Amino acid sequence: MIKFPKPIQELIDQFCKLPGIGPKTAERLVFYLLKQSMEELNDFASALTQINNSVIKCSICHNISEKDPCSICSDKNRDHHIICIVAEPHDLAAIENTGEYKGVYHVLGGVLDPLSGQTPDRLRFNDLLTKLQKNKISEIMLAFNPDMEGEATMMYLNNLLKPFKIKITRLARGMPVGADLEYTDEITLSSAIKNRKEM
Amino acid sequence: MIKFPKPIQELIDQFCKLPGIGPKTAERLVFYLLKQSMEELNDFASALTQINNSVIKCSICHNISEKDPCSICSDKNRDHHIICIVAEPHDLAAIENTGEYKGVYHVLGGVLDPLSGQTPDRLRFNDLLTKLQKNKISEIMLAFNPDMEGEATMMYLNNLLKPFKIKITRLARGMPVGADLEYTDEITLSSAIKNRKEM
Repeated sequence: MIKFPKPIQELIDQFCKLPGIGPKTAERLVFYLLKQSMEELNDFASALTQINNSVIKCSICHNISEKDPCSICSDKNRDHHIICIVAEPHDLAAIENTGEYKGVYHVLGGVLDPLSGQTPDRLRFNDLLTKLQKNKISEIMLAFNPDMEGEATMMYLNNLLKPFKIKITRLARGMPVGADLEYTDEITLSSAIKNRKEM
Repeated sequence: MIKFPKPIQELIDQFCKLPGIGPKTAERLVFYLLKQSMEELNDFASALTQINNSVIKCSICHNISEKDPCSICSDKNRDHHIICIVAEPHDLAAIENTGEYKGVYHVLGGVLDPLSGQTPDRLRFNDLLTKLQKNKISEIMLAFNPDMEGEATMMYLNNLLKPFKIKITRLARGMPVGADLEYTDEITLSSAIKNRKEM
């Protein structure tokens, strides 16, 4: 194999770390970037470093946000008695894009996966319990990918939240098992929200 | 649609500019990067800005390189009487990866495409002619994508180089028309180099 100059190989390696980007794609992206002006590369680089500097997390729902509390948590038109629990901010974005859900959220920060070291203490369960003790919540909607880890997390949450005697629902099983919440089309996800059923 | 915080949207937009990356993929990449440490983001950003700072072009073959002349042009074991003309550095990399070719290169900097403003004066034809006048070249091998622009460039080169009475070859037509040189598997490309035919 040809050896690329070190800075090029380093950038290829950086792109290879991203999900779904293999060495061939990384090469193509880097060769494209090589043709860009210094200014455009700098813009890209500063956009990269900006995301950690200026993106904060809402202290209530833990979604990524520019202000604290976020625009959803501070919206008085939303129903603050329903909390939708999601694993990651992109799952929240998928739900928001349907326009079907009017409650608030709680971003757990991942799913239970003990084999990869994702144990309950690494997710935001305690914060959720505090929230339930402090506020009057009428419904908890669990919105996780219908895969092994997602199902396990929903089981765990169902047991954890039972003492509160709150209605706990989950997205309708209209989604095929193994599908990815983030990539579900809006119509399917809309009907899954409408048909959510009590656990 | 949900509005992402501005810095996130900016990074998504930057990724969307890359070839083959749509908004959904860009979103996924950015959400992945959001979970990385500041240090890793800085590494990525500096790798981006490095490519224009420390990558130079070989003054002989115009390939990207860390030194001038590049490792191929300064290699005494290679046959400097055969020049392979390619459009871009990634085409050169594809040829090198076959291990089949032992001559040197000339990177033209693109293909003729007058409708997009790629006229002969924007490619490195003059430099090629100087090279042919100064050195004893026994063969010119044209390695372009077998598409409209590639064929036109090869026609143009064939006419331009006729007065020199040098053997001009092109990659065998084993590659299907419309294929992309960069993505041809090594075996097909190897046999295309072996079976190159005189124009």
